Amino acid sequence: MSEKKVAIVMGSDSDLPVVKAAAQVLWEFGIGTQVRVLSAHRTPGEACAFAAAARENGFSAIIAAAGKAAHLAGVLAAHTTLPVIGLPLKSSELDGLDALLATVQMPSGIPVATVAINGAKNAGLLAAQIIGVADQEVADKLAAYKKEMERAVLEKDQKVQAELSK
Amino acid sequence: MSEKKVAIVMGSDSDLPVVKAAAQVLWEFGIGTQVRVLSAHRTPGEACAFAAAARENGFSAIIAAAGKAAHLAGVLAAHTTLPVIGLPLKSSELDGLDALLATVQMPSGIPVATVAINGAKNAGLLAAQIIGVADQEVADKLAAYKKEMERAVLEKDQKVQAELSK
Amino acid sequence: MSEKKVAIVMGSDSDLPVVKAAAQVLWEFGIGTQVRVLSAHRTPGEACAFAAAARENGFSAIIAAAGKAAHLAGVLAAHTTLPVIGLPLKSSELDGLDALLATVQMPSGIPVATVAINGAKNAGLLAAQIIGVADQEVADKLAAYKKEMERAVLEKDQKVQAELSK
Amino acid sequence: MSEKKVAIVMGSDSDLPVVKAAAQVLWEFGIGTQVRVLSAHRTPGEACAFAAAARENGFSAIIAAAGKAAHLAGVLAAHTTLPVIGLPLKSSELDGLDALLATVQMPSGIPVATVAINGAKNAGLLAAQIIGVADQEVADKLAAYKKEMERAVLEKDQKVQAELSK
Amino acid sequence: MSEKKVAIVMGSDSDLPVVKAAAQVLWEFGIGTQVRVLSAHRTPGEACAFAAAARENGFSAIIAAAGKAAHLAGVLAAHTTLPVIGLPLKSSELDGLDALLATVQMPSGIPVATVAINGAKNAGLLAAQIIGVADQEVADKLAAYKKEMERAVLEKDQKVQAELSK
Amino acid sequence: MSEKKVAIVMGSDSDLPVVKAAAQVLWEFGIGTQVRVLSAHRTPGEACAFAAAARENGFSAIIAAAGKAAHLAGVLAAHTTLPVIGLPLKSSELDGLDALLATVQMPSGIPVATVAINGAKNAGLLAAQIIGVADQEVADKLAAYKKEMERAVLEKDQKVQAELSK
Amino acid sequence: MSEKKVAIVMGSDSDLPVVKAAAQVLWEFGIGTQVRVLSAHRTPGEACAFAAAARENGFSAIIAAAGKAAHLAGVLAAHTTLPVIGLPLKSSELDGLDALLATVQMPSGIPVATVAINGAKNAGLLAAQIIGVADQEVADKLAAYKKEMERAVLEKDQKVQAELSK
Amino acid sequence: MSEKKVAIVMGSDSDLPVVKAAAQVLWEFGIGTQVRVLSAHRTPGEACAFAAAARENGFSAIIAAAGKAAHLAGVLAAHTTLPVIGLPLKSSELDGLDALLATVQMPSGIPVATVAINGAKNAGLLAAQIIGVADQEVADKLAAYKKEMERAVLEKDQKVQAELSK
Repeated sequence: MSEKKVAIVMGSDSDLPVVKAAAQVLWEFGIGTQVRVLSAHRTPGEACAFAAAARENGFSAIIAAAGKAAHLAGVLAAHTTLPVIGLPLKSSELDGLDALLATVQMPSGIPVATVAINGAKNAGLLAAQIIGVADQEVADKLAAYKKEMERAVLEKDQKVQAELSK
Repeated sequence: MSEKKVAIVMGSDSDLPVVKAAAQVLWEFGIGTQVRVLSAHRTPGEACAFAAAARENGFSAIIAAAGKAAHLAGVLAAHTTLPVIGLPLKSSELDGLDALLATVQMPSGIPVATVAINGAKNAGLLAAQIIGVADQEVADKLAAYKKEMERAVLEKDQKVQAELSK
Repeated sequence: MSEKKVAIVMGSDSDLPVVKAAAQVLWEFGIGTQVRVLSAHRTPGEACAFAAAARENGFSAIIAAAGKAAHLAGVLAAHTTLPVIGLPLKSSELDGLDALLATVQMPSGIPVATVAINGAKNAGLLAAQIIGVADQEVADKLAAYKKEMERAVLEKDQKVQAELSK
Repeated sequence: MSEKKVAIVMGSDSDLPVVKAAAQVLWEFGIGTQVRVLSAHRTPGEACAFAAAARENGFSAIIAAAGKAAHLAGVLAAHTTLPVIGLPLKSSELDGLDALLATVQMPSGIPVATVAINGAKNAGLLAAQIIGVADQEVADKLAAYKKEMERAVLEKDQKVQAELSK
Repeated sequence: MSEKKVAIVMGSDSDLPVVKAAAQVLWEFGIGTQVRVLSAHRTPGEACAFAAAARENGFSAIIAAAGKAAHLAGVLAAHTTLPVIGLPLKSSELDGLDALLATVQMPSGIPVATVAINGAKNAGLLAAQIIGVADQEVADKLAAYKKEMERAVLEKDQKVQAELSK
Repeated sequence: MSEKKVAIVMGSDSDLPVVKAAAQVLWEFGIGTQVRVLSAHRTPGEACAFAAAARENGFSAIIAAAGKAAHLAGVLAAHTTLPVIGLPLKSSELDGLDALLATVQMPSGIPVATVAINGAKNAGLLAAQIIGVADQEVADKLAAYKKEMERAVLEKDQKVQAELSK
Repeated sequence: MSEKKVAIVMGSDSDLPVVKAAAQVLWEFGIGTQVRVLSAHRTPGEACAFAAAARENGFSAIIAAAGKAAHLAGVLAAHTTLPVIGLPLKSSELDGLDALLATVQMPSGIPVATVAINGAKNAGLLAAQIIGVADQEVADKLAAYKKEMERAVLEKDQKVQAELSK
Repeated sequence: MSEKKVAIVMGSDSDLPVVKAAAQVLWEFGIGTQVRVLSAHRTPGEACAFAAAARENGFSAIIAAAGKAAHLAGVLAAHTTLPVIGLPLKSSELDGLDALLATVQMPSGIPVATVAINGAKNAGLLAAQIIGVADQEVADKLAAYKKEMERAVLEKDQKVQAELSK
């Protein structure tokens, strides 16, 4: 287990089924996680305090998952100089376009590193890449992960090619 | 001058040319205003503290104007039980649709009373209506304002009808 | 029970399953409700008359719920100086974006305080906040409600943190 | 001059430069026009009364032009059984998509015959077509108009073909 | 049965479950219908010929229903001076926004009277309104229909008001 | 079997149920297919090498199917002078609008011939049309296919007309 | 000059400033062009006749440029088995999204090979690629064109790299 | 000057006026930059080779700026395990929504850390934050930068408050 760790914050525990994939990627890479339910609107004090202390508490990055008018990533980013990864969630009304725009269109000065709507796995991978910039062990694992993805696609390619080319 | 007052908070002083119309309406109704530049992302501490103290500081409502990933209204609403009026601003990229969705699509528990993109005058009128619920003097002014609007349209109607009906 | 009351108007009784959440919040706060089915298009006379008399009939705010080309909130707002809260409803075609734009993009002079698509609970809370501007008892209940929301999130946070942080 | 006539109602006299094209088409076809400035929100009483009396006042159709949350066509349609032609106008914020959706997405029971954003000329032509259903003279003029359009395009085709085909 | 009749053309017989509502309204009003499956792309010759002959074949209006890149209404309108009512259909990909824009955004000279996405009943009512301009019997039925709609809403209003107002 | 052949490349084998329709059309026209799973992001080397060699390997066109940020068609087009047909796929978040824009909005110099979202059959037909430009046999089959489509619609027209015209 | 030729059809001669770039690319490749102004709505007969005869008149592809409810490409495609390249044009209202959807979202059976909004140069290049499938001379020119594009970017890269890397 | 460096890659040198702000932020933080013009479509070989060698060439992150069907960030990300920051650019047709979706909606396995449309300054800041995870000097500069932003807003707040509060 690397001593690096990543915080995963979601606005509501109902987001867990989607967000969990971010934690799973990080566990796979041997990166510690702290998973939190903190809302920019319902527990703003705790959310801000968490972000403000995240660097000194040893976190390398924060993943913030929220839907609808998704303010969580931006609010956390306002209180830290760590990279904040925004994970916009699809809700039942607008397909997540609202969450995407509310996460990515941050004003000058406070970036949020936004991934795809419901792209929890990629949020985890991006956190690993950020750690991998200075951590060779994680970088090596990322390279191996990339190779394995390639191998898996090529295997499927063989199968489909055999079945369907005429 | 009514002893009621309304706070108008904008995320950047570059928003002033649009936002000013909200203050002008309130002045017209004899409602006190405090106009502030406070950012949900660049001065989150001041913004939250302002909202948290707004009720005891005598405000009846807060107008929050912001563009792009407009978190300001939601962040203020997280810290007060006063009505927060969200005024989404058009910026140079997405015509304000991002700001509209980031303002209006608030999660359950923390409403923001959203008006039209760049609808600063209506933000001021809505604040006056909220005060007018319990303040007969403001309610009377609102009724007079409505009548005057009607009169102005009917006057234009006369003119256009005369010129263009054939 | 406060002597304050709020009208909840919907365009069709098929909207009731969504809209009911607005009434429930108001009942919880001890605020009286009158729930109506009035259409801007099918019963325009009754709708306008209702709005025109709402203030003198003792209402503090009107919640107007409608879908598609949602004109109801704007039409009611044309006939009253009370705050009108627009609740855009999702229908089966355009995810409620049509209702949102038709509700929020009001022209200068006639604001509608718009909440999220299908955000019935927030429509009720906003009505309570408007009453709470001048009614200390409702304001106190809103503060308690906010505290309880915070407590509930923190409880879930404890649980998720314990289960998923590694 | 046919004894048929068409009403052209716009929400604001600032819409005149766009809307005028509707009147010009009707004049060209010898159809009488009455051009009005009536707002669904600022002069709701006059707008509704106008629509309610339109049939007995001899109108064959009503063109209703409005921008943003364009309720005008729908509100007029609620008060008449005449065909109401909705002309959504582009405003400075959302390119007219708001006006289009607010005009065309009418609920069951109250249709609005919607034309393109800023499509004032087509609004006029559609009114002429509606009159032409039962008025042979107007129908003949429409057929001639169509022929002339065709001729004009073919003339341009000759010119462009000669210049640019290689 | 009025001697007036309306053509209802759809691009595919799979559209029938939605489009049928247009025919049902017309039958209710005693207006004759001819229901056709004609595609702007798969049977362009038949579609154009049908439109070109529609007036002399005694039709008063054509309802054209199509989804996706819905060209049917525009293509029919190119061949007739009768009013063409465009009925954009929701398909499984883009919620009907593509069909709406492809139907309503007609270029200058060839209007299409567009109704809401899947708004088949309104397409039928609009056709009836167009006939009703010069046919008093249909106009009277439209007035009665409007009254009945109003009565039905008011009945529901009574019921909901009794159950839910507190 | 023509000696012409077409490559069908998809980004993931989970796309097969939709994409298969492209192969089926080509088989029907006697055009050889090679069906591949190659990802612009997971197997970029193989994807680029495949496109670079496609012309000399005897392909006449490449169909590239991908969803979300669909880069596959553009990436293949960067490596070949053959026509690349982009088939944007609907995924579970944004209805395929993301894939459509990511496929069609190619910068100057590298066109992608884009078909409808999930329009796999049309992708196959377009490939056949491209081959049919210089291959009379395929052109004849396309003409026959068009006739059969017309016949099928007219047959349905007869049936619907008989059942529903009143 | 190759004996191959391509038709470029636009709905209005006002589209010429954008569409001309398609012709220029084809001239550069020594491919003959016929440039026409034919409207799906104003000259439907000529447009359909042109498409129906295009193959026997020696054309290899048709480029169809139109804005708003852009039906031109689809209507031409209905009358030919040649590849039809759809070029959606930006107009002053909806940024070309309407034209894009009306061009690309074709129903099953009638594909349109759509390029980017206002992507006239790419429309020309795609036509050249289609000809280049069976014409080695054009294929060679396409390969040279691709090389020259690459060289031009690399030259700019050298310059920017030298100036701005620090 | 830190020995850390960041690559800034843009698809066309015409993007320089917007993209330059990313370099300026990095210079301000004493972080080395290499600015490149490399296109995913016009120079795919060079772009891929650059990304593949970026880690061993000492880069900590890559900023990729592109408009329209913005594939650049995704294509670079396919060839490296470094974090790739996607900067979607506004072009003249679709306001940058196409570039945003084409950049952010990456499939599982290959994340792109996307910032706002035209958000070049934030792209630079995000690169600095990524370096700052393991580089205390850059982290300290980020903290100072944040303080200075706060101070600047508060100064404007004083001024606006004094001028406009009544």
